[in-house]
Amino acid sequence: MAPNLNRLNDFMDRQGLDAVVATSRENVTYLSGFWSMPQWTRFGPQAYVVYPRSGLADACLITDAGALDLVADQDVLISDVRAVGGFVMTRGAGELDALERRQAPLFDAPRAPSALAALRDALRRMKLDRATIGIDENGLLPGIAATLRDEFSGARLVDAAGLLAQVRSVKTETEVSILREAAQLTERALEDALAIAAEGVTEAAMRRVFNTRLVTEDALPATCCIGFGRRSGLINSQPSDQALQHGDLIRFDVGARYRNYRSDISRIGVFGEPDDRIVTCHAAVRAGVQHALGIMRPGLPVATLFHEVVETVRASGLPQFDRTHVGHGIGLDAYDPPSLSAGSDAVLEQDMVLCVETPFYELGFGGIQVEDMVRVTADGVETLMSMDSHLRRVG
Amino acid sequence: MAPNLNRLNDFMDRQGLDAVVATSRENVTYLSGFWSMPQWTRFGPQAYVVYPRSGLADACLITDAGALDLVADQDVLISDVRAVGGFVMTRGAGELDALERRQAPLFDAPRAPSALAALRDALRRMKLDRATIGIDENGLLPGIAATLRDEFSGARLVDAAGLLAQVRSVKTETEVSILREAAQLTERALEDALAIAAEGVTEAAMRRVFNTRLVTEDALPATCCIGFGRRSGLINSQPSDQALQHGDLIRFDVGARYRNYRSDISRIGVFGEPDDRIVTCHAAVRAGVQHALGIMRPGLPVATLFHEVVETVRASGLPQFDRTHVGHGIGLDAYDPPSLSAGSDAVLEQDMVLCVETPFYELGFGGIQVEDMVRVTADGVETLMSMDSHLRRVG
Repeated sequence: MAPNLNRLNDFMDRQGLDAVVATSRENVTYLSGFWSMPQWTRFGPQAYVVYPRSGLADACLITDAGALDLVADQDVLISDVRAVGGFVMTRGAGELDALERRQAPLFDAPRAPSALAALRDALRRMKLDRATIGIDENGLLPGIAATLRDEFSGARLVDAAGLLAQVRSVKTETEVSILREAAQLTERALEDALAIAAEGVTEAAMRRVFNTRLVTEDALPATCCIGFGRRSGLINSQPSDQALQHGDLIRFDVGARYRNYRSDISRIGVFGEPDDRIVTCHAAVRAGVQHALGIMRPGLPVATLFHEVVETVRASGLPQFDRTHVGHGIGLDAYDPPSLSAGSDAVLEQDMVLCVETPFYELGFGGIQVEDMVRVTADGVETLMSMDSHLRRVG
Repeated sequence: MAPNLNRLNDFMDRQGLDAVVATSRENVTYLSGFWSMPQWTRFGPQAYVVYPRSGLADACLITDAGALDLVADQDVLISDVRAVGGFVMTRGAGELDALERRQAPLFDAPRAPSALAALRDALRRMKLDRATIGIDENGLLPGIAATLRDEFSGARLVDAAGLLAQVRSVKTETEVSILREAAQLTERALEDALAIAAEGVTEAAMRRVFNTRLVTEDALPATCCIGFGRRSGLINSQPSDQALQHGDLIRFDVGARYRNYRSDISRIGVFGEPDDRIVTCHAAVRAGVQHALGIMRPGLPVATLFHEVVETVRASGLPQFDRTHVGHGIGLDAYDPPSLSAGSDAVLEQDMVLCVETPFYELGFGGIQVEDMVRVTADGVETLMSMDSHLRRVG
């Protein structure tokens, strides 16, 4: 999938960067199309992209040799691949198939002894010794940044994780399609879970149904907060053996990973007849999200959006409502910029994909939340959801 | 669940540490019993444990306020909890239930403006300004370690991620029980996936079945490499639409997360009649693992184990077999120490839980692997597996 290189180049020009080095999993996958299982599934294994201002054709991908098979098996956008470490791939006498013919030269090429050595070599080879280089500080093992600064004292190294997150905050058409599918398969899983609501059904049973639908749709569980009754007021309510009772709130704040992209949505159910407080609170938090969807458009200051949403919820029956943010971007990471908060100086841009949310947690009552995924269009927003946010009465 | 504090205290005494600060998710959960959803599901949110040599009763847990609900809802071993950030929890007029009564004081307590500020305060409050402090370098946001060194110039700060991993490498009885269950539910999922083997079934279809069984057993998918035929030779073979054909190898290298602990196992199936090469290679790699299980005991040098395993595979029909390691510890992390490699100076210790593996990848042929999870006992090993490692003929 192609990254938004125009946006990246524009940011680099504004900051005077000759190159950027992606080091965190989201940024490496974004810039290269390369998904390294070691990097994505545990702490430690390094993969980097060195991207010079001249473009992807001149970029270098660095990976542990133990993930070179994935380079051959994926649509990787970078042809200069450098491997690290001693992973052993045997070359047999058998004739190679197409996939093996792509692997063979990758495994045959010389290896660097460490990720740092490979990165050092790449920077020198690309003549960046005296350049201004943006380094994604978030994916480097401790110590590597300091060593690079020592060894490249003629270069100017600046942190670039924030810049890369900004680039990723505006989505391509392909990314929007994946995020829409991620949102809607998560809704389907939520519907499946709600459908088993019955006296005595546990939160954990709903999680099993929810996760089963996700994996059946080739997604992976990412976050799964399901809380019944008072447990709905647990911010991160982890499904327990709590059994559903008549009148219970059911709060879902759930998300998946699908084709590397995240979803994050919230819906509220009630088992049987809701009491008045539930109805009032739900209507208030829902009004906040609906108001957001009505005013969002390119150019709208995020701080304005935040204040209008909070004021709307307060004016709609929840005067005590307060929040530090009312949403966030979403993409390869569950929290892309911008954070929809009072202190933000960001403005909305076309093709941002955002989670808009107005959760309300009250000790002695519970938690009520609406969270929608939406895309900013040329003149407003398009929802990525298929399921309305009304209070769902089940059972 | 109680951590192995005797082992931690012993390591601290040997290194002259007055305190250790856990910062990575595995170490925070290990020392405190606290699982922070924000910390475990994305990069950035910080949680720390400051553990002084005097013990857990004097330790401090630092978390984002947005995870304080989990402190109240989990069996957390540390009573001094300090929260960071402005997360809003409303206190209603309703009577509190037991869980809310545990939450209320946590949310009412003063907050620190940042994780760094909270850590700084804790170190000062615990009079560690001039102490020798081991800091788990792997979980700190970039820049925090350097700031701490500046601000605590009278203290001696040393990296402690390696020490904490060493502590975690010897498991408690409870940890062994969880790891055994993790291994065996992963085997059941693998059996379910193998059971659908039929002409034309895809790798992705087997993944769906595998993952469905995991989530049905309250585990989460962690790693899922399933490769048919030549794709079995992809190190990290990600399930594709490749359809099963008669004579195909089926390689599983799969793992789950269960109650925060990881599994990592490998088994080989063949659809129909295996050719001689498959039988020979499988017997050779299996002989390596079986030999390991026969000689492992406390005190055995890891380097000796490595060499004996490699030699056994070579002598059993695969003279070209070569590896950088033949396994690794497993626990909260998929790769706990020790790595079973030639250069290791570690020796096996009782109650280590290890993955022993002898994968063989050959371009022009495929991949064959056996990987068992075992526990080192007082005089040998106990397997955590329930499924034999023979070549599974299916279809």
